Amino acid sequence: MYRIGIDVGGTGIKAGIVNYNGNIIGKGECRTNTESGFDNIVNDIANLVKKIVVENGLIMKDIKSVGLGIPGTINKKGEATCVNINWNNVPLINKLKELLPNIQVYAQNDATVAALAETKYGSMKGTNIGIMLTLGTGVGGGIVINEKVFSGAHGIASEFGHMIIGENFYNCNCGNNGCFETFCSATAIIKYAQKLINEGRKSIILEKANNNINCIDAKIVFDSYRENDEVAIEIINRFKNYLAIGISNLVHSFDPEVISLGGGVSRAHDIILDGLEELVKKHIIFEDVEISDIVIAQFGNDAGIIGSSVLS
Amino acid sequence: MYRIGIDVGGTGIKAGIVNYNGNIIGKGECRTNTESGFDNIVNDIANLVKKIVVENGLIMKDIKSVGLGIPGTINKKGEATCVNINWNNVPLINKLKELLPNIQVYAQNDATVAALAETKYGSMKGTNIGIMLTLGTGVGGGIVINEKVFSGAHGIASEFGHMIIGENFYNCNCGNNGCFETFCSATAIIKYAQKLINEGRKSIILEKANNNINCIDAKIVFDSYRENDEVAIEIINRFKNYLAIGISNLVHSFDPEVISLGGGVSRAHDIILDGLEELVKKHIIFEDVEISDIVIAQFGNDAGIIGSSVLS
Repeated sequence: MYRIGIDVGGTGIKAGIVNYNGNIIGKGECRTNTESGFDNIVNDIANLVKKIVVENGLIMKDIKSVGLGIPGTINKKGEATCVNINWNNVPLINKLKELLPNIQVYAQNDATVAALAETKYGSMKGTNIGIMLTLGTGVGGGIVINEKVFSGAHGIASEFGHMIIGENFYNCNCGNNGCFETFCSATAIIKYAQKLINEGRKSIILEKANNNINCIDAKIVFDSYRENDEVAIEIINRFKNYLAIGISNLVHSFDPEVISLGGGVSRAHDIILDGLEELVKKHIIFEDVEISDIVIAQFGNDAGIIGSSVLS
Repeated sequence: MYRIGIDVGGTGIKAGIVNYNGNIIGKGECRTNTESGFDNIVNDIANLVKKIVVENGLIMKDIKSVGLGIPGTINKKGEATCVNINWNNVPLINKLKELLPNIQVYAQNDATVAALAETKYGSMKGTNIGIMLTLGTGVGGGIVINEKVFSGAHGIASEFGHMIIGENFYNCNCGNNGCFETFCSATAIIKYAQKLINEGRKSIILEKANNNINCIDAKIVFDSYRENDEVAIEIINRFKNYLAIGISNLVHSFDPEVISLGGGVSRAHDIILDGLEELVKKHIIFEDVEISDIVIAQFGNDAGIIGSSVLS
């Protein structure tokens, strides 16, 4: 038997057949036709499942379950809400079950399934309380307790990106000020770089962005940090300080065994992890107490497929 | 069979014999002789247990377990750390087991045992994910999941008072800035009242405090709010706004079924609950999603005894 994991993104849908060791034995993908509406997207997902099953010499009876990682939340009734793809309480699970009879269907938030992948096979393997932070365009979160997803009473737990941790110079997309993701995402890094440069600070960041402030990305800022650019150092130090605050809030709340950092920004893990534990400990009230290990996620682009395949 | 619950405070130790319906059938107390050291305090606790057993016509064989609620944390080895009473990783459980042979001994943080009391018998009865916030001199927290205490991997979960939620005009005792308890405790209310009055604001708060700024307490501020005092309204509105931020962080993290507010400040629950849910929802990213019920704790001074008695 195999399980299928599907990573539903704002632009594309990736599916993989996963064996019981967590290895992907076959893959496929299609576009996310957001404009075509919910029913058509679910049809596309069902067809993608059938296609990769055939392409890999299997039949539907070989598939135990289909799991989806979605860029939003799923409630206890199996209804999904994903702003990116215009889903607002759509009956995702029921609709997909209709299209894929006799197959178990599950869905969870994308950062949550990444947390599950890391707990089953990766950087948090064997831990009883693990938390994943995905540092990308925004900040996502996932909680796994005793190898089970913890999604709260209404399915909206682990939205750490919108935990308020300070005051910021710009508001979050959600309308509030001080959200974790306005300090610790790629977007946050870019916005702070633009702010400093707009204030007249000289930096190699702008050169690397072809002298176009709108072309700055997080990688350019990390690259400039490596070249000891003063502005880049200020940006990254601020990022790390707020990352330490956000992590200390998680320690004071969940006290997990491990906190695993994933997402595009975590590719600069050498810079991010350097001194991070000490920064976190500065914010913890207990001086002589062991705290969570902070590690880098093992799975990159495949975390969504692998993690959603093991949903149950 | 009965269970004994013990509420260990900075000045006094209260013990109660509790039946399996959560009713206290006998009580006793003694002073916390902080200056006499750990061994003597544990002796006092053991003697208090033996005394109330005899006074209530029981023998030690009638007692199944002794649970303690402590103003600090307990690690997985049963060692307690409580700054108030100068305990730093002291072997609380082992020492008490020596003095009370053949009896199970448990200990947890005091806000955590209050959460347990509310989950077993009070405002959170029957909930699968419940969080307690005690708003007193500081802010304490407790998490109960499936009727079990959730204390994290190293025993330091639910220290919500030190979750950083903004920037404040004074630092927390822990050395950091922006801790939840510097906005939402009795201390926070007093400090902000003193700040406004020191800035020359006119208020009936000062009169009620006998024109001595050091005599302001939280009750005076709430009483002045009831008399429409402009400064008191500003203080309480600020308190409620940050309370909503702290609660929204808990919703975005744990998404509990119920959040129960206890502690001395919660006595003004008519003022605190008025409009609080709307304030919390303003900070939640999802618009059409059900969130945690926010309620007032049922047990007051007995929460420590009742909650610690059901530790297991």
